Amino acid sequence: MGMKRLVDAVRAKQNPTVAGLDPRLDYLPEFLKEKAYAEFGKTLEGAAAAVLEYNKALIDAMYDIVPAIKPQAAYYELYGWAGVKTLAETIAYARDKDMYVITDGKRNDIGTTMEAYAAAHLGLVDVDGEQYAPFDGDALTVNGYLGADGIKPLLSICKERDRGIFVLCKTSNPSSGELQDRLLDGEALYARMGDLCEAWGADTIDESGYSAVGAVVGATYPAQLAELRARLPHTYFLVPGYGAQGGGAADVAPAFDKDGMGAIVNSSRGILCAWKKEGCDPADFAGAARREAIRMKADLTSVW
Amino acid sequence: MGMKRLVDAVRAKQNPTVAGLDPRLDYLPEFLKEKAYAEFGKTLEGAAAAVLEYNKALIDAMYDIVPAIKPQAAYYELYGWAGVKTLAETIAYARDKDMYVITDGKRNDIGTTMEAYAAAHLGLVDVDGEQYAPFDGDALTVNGYLGADGIKPLLSICKERDRGIFVLCKTSNPSSGELQDRLLDGEALYARMGDLCEAWGADTIDESGYSAVGAVVGATYPAQLAELRARLPHTYFLVPGYGAQGGGAADVAPAFDKDGMGAIVNSSRGILCAWKKEGCDPADFAGAARREAIRMKADLTSVW
Repeated sequence: MGMKRLVDAVRAKQNPTVAGLDPRLDYLPEFLKEKAYAEFGKTLEGAAAAVLEYNKALIDAMYDIVPAIKPQAAYYELYGWAGVKTLAETIAYARDKDMYVITDGKRNDIGTTMEAYAAAHLGLVDVDGEQYAPFDGDALTVNGYLGADGIKPLLSICKERDRGIFVLCKTSNPSSGELQDRLLDGEALYARMGDLCEAWGADTIDESGYSAVGAVVGATYPAQLAELRARLPHTYFLVPGYGAQGGGAADVAPAFDKDGMGAIVNSSRGILCAWKKEGCDPADFAGAARREAIRMKADLTSVW
Repeated sequence: MGMKRLVDAVRAKQNPTVAGLDPRLDYLPEFLKEKAYAEFGKTLEGAAAAVLEYNKALIDAMYDIVPAIKPQAAYYELYGWAGVKTLAETIAYARDKDMYVITDGKRNDIGTTMEAYAAAHLGLVDVDGEQYAPFDGDALTVNGYLGADGIKPLLSICKERDRGIFVLCKTSNPSSGELQDRLLDGEALYARMGDLCEAWGADTIDESGYSAVGAVVGATYPAQLAELRARLPHTYFLVPGYGAQGGGAADVAPAFDKDGMGAIVNSSRGILCAWKKEGCDPADFAGAARREAIRMKADLTSVW
């Protein structure tokens, strides 16, 4: 009920990487789009169909070496309900291949509304006696600004269904310090948020040593990453900011515990656009993603 | 490009109410559900179809007296892509009847990802030359924990398409103080967030006197509501917490400027479940919602 499934997946593949599936249309090779437009027109449905094919090819190319994907909800909502259907189908496809799926939705609300998000993204929904799992991710990113009322509704589903959450703590963006670095009763807001993650997760720690409540901590702030790693021994980190945002393996190193666990590092653009950077045949876009994933694995495990 | 369209709608109907469309299945009368299940089965599609009929009936019953609706995204995601389709259809139906639609998604992210949310919910999406408005709300609730990088991507769409945002400031829930009330360099976090709302909106103020950047401030904390009203003269307030959460008209009163503008007060359960509270014929559920909306309008305008 903590992070054992994620830890096992990282250990099995000896790779602390999560592939961020943020499928902007301009990342997709033309031939994929043309095929989808031929069937659905240049419509939201056409875009969503192209994205689904793209995602499936990437998953096929990476699932034996990359333990997890992180689809970013915004890039699916962008294509309306058709895009959201592609999100659900992408999650199902990856989980069928035993990948761990972190839905990056940064959802937040309170009480029964947060319960609805929890049921939608991690749990089951009851339709007058029939049960469905609408999105069925393994974990969901959330925003803790509303306090415990926004987090507690997730915890029962985490326990019952062995799922996890990652709470925004210290984000990777340049302006993250605007609020997160400010001192709250003498300590940085991000540190307070981190302490809350430890507290919220306290009774969900499993044999992995980590709780179901992880934290998002950016690679672009290595000092804070090191500080939080020491401060939050039971909190798994989801680390954005590697690669395109500027973080390298040395920046990410403080996120890991001494056994190389404790953090999973996201790369989105680096993997998705590897075919453009390589300048390879666009038909080989998934092969390029795999080659970049292998390079990234070597880079990250060199600092374990 | 500020809040003029909302202010005009409130003024035209002399009613500072937004009806929160948080359609839990157990709020719906049985006959509506049975009809949808007969067509789609007890499925997510069936639930989503029932919710759409329910929403349309409520909108039909209220649009001439209530200026705005606020659909809560969680209760649509709960039914997967079918629910999200119902969200888009509900927004379109209400806007066709000249209601102002605040999509309550509390979205948050940075840079191009936040641009994707902005395009999805308030803007246009380009599919290789063809343009679509996937959700097309008038305003979106957002969470400002990530700082300016999470807000600025919304502002250009607010300006171009005359849309608005409401940033979580002081929320209505019991644990909102856990972080929001803590002192950040000597001032409460919610007050800092409020100051940021004024700053972010500064160049979007229109003839209404309000900017495109509103704030969410709960009715359950009237002292903070009064403090923020005085502090944030150009920031329109979206006020949850009236009714079922415990706030009354006297609690809400400090949210208004002296001319009765400056705030729109949400009621969800009070309106949606009026038919249950009244004990009327379930077939009259929309009539009961209208009667509750009229009662609420009288209650709120009594403190103008």
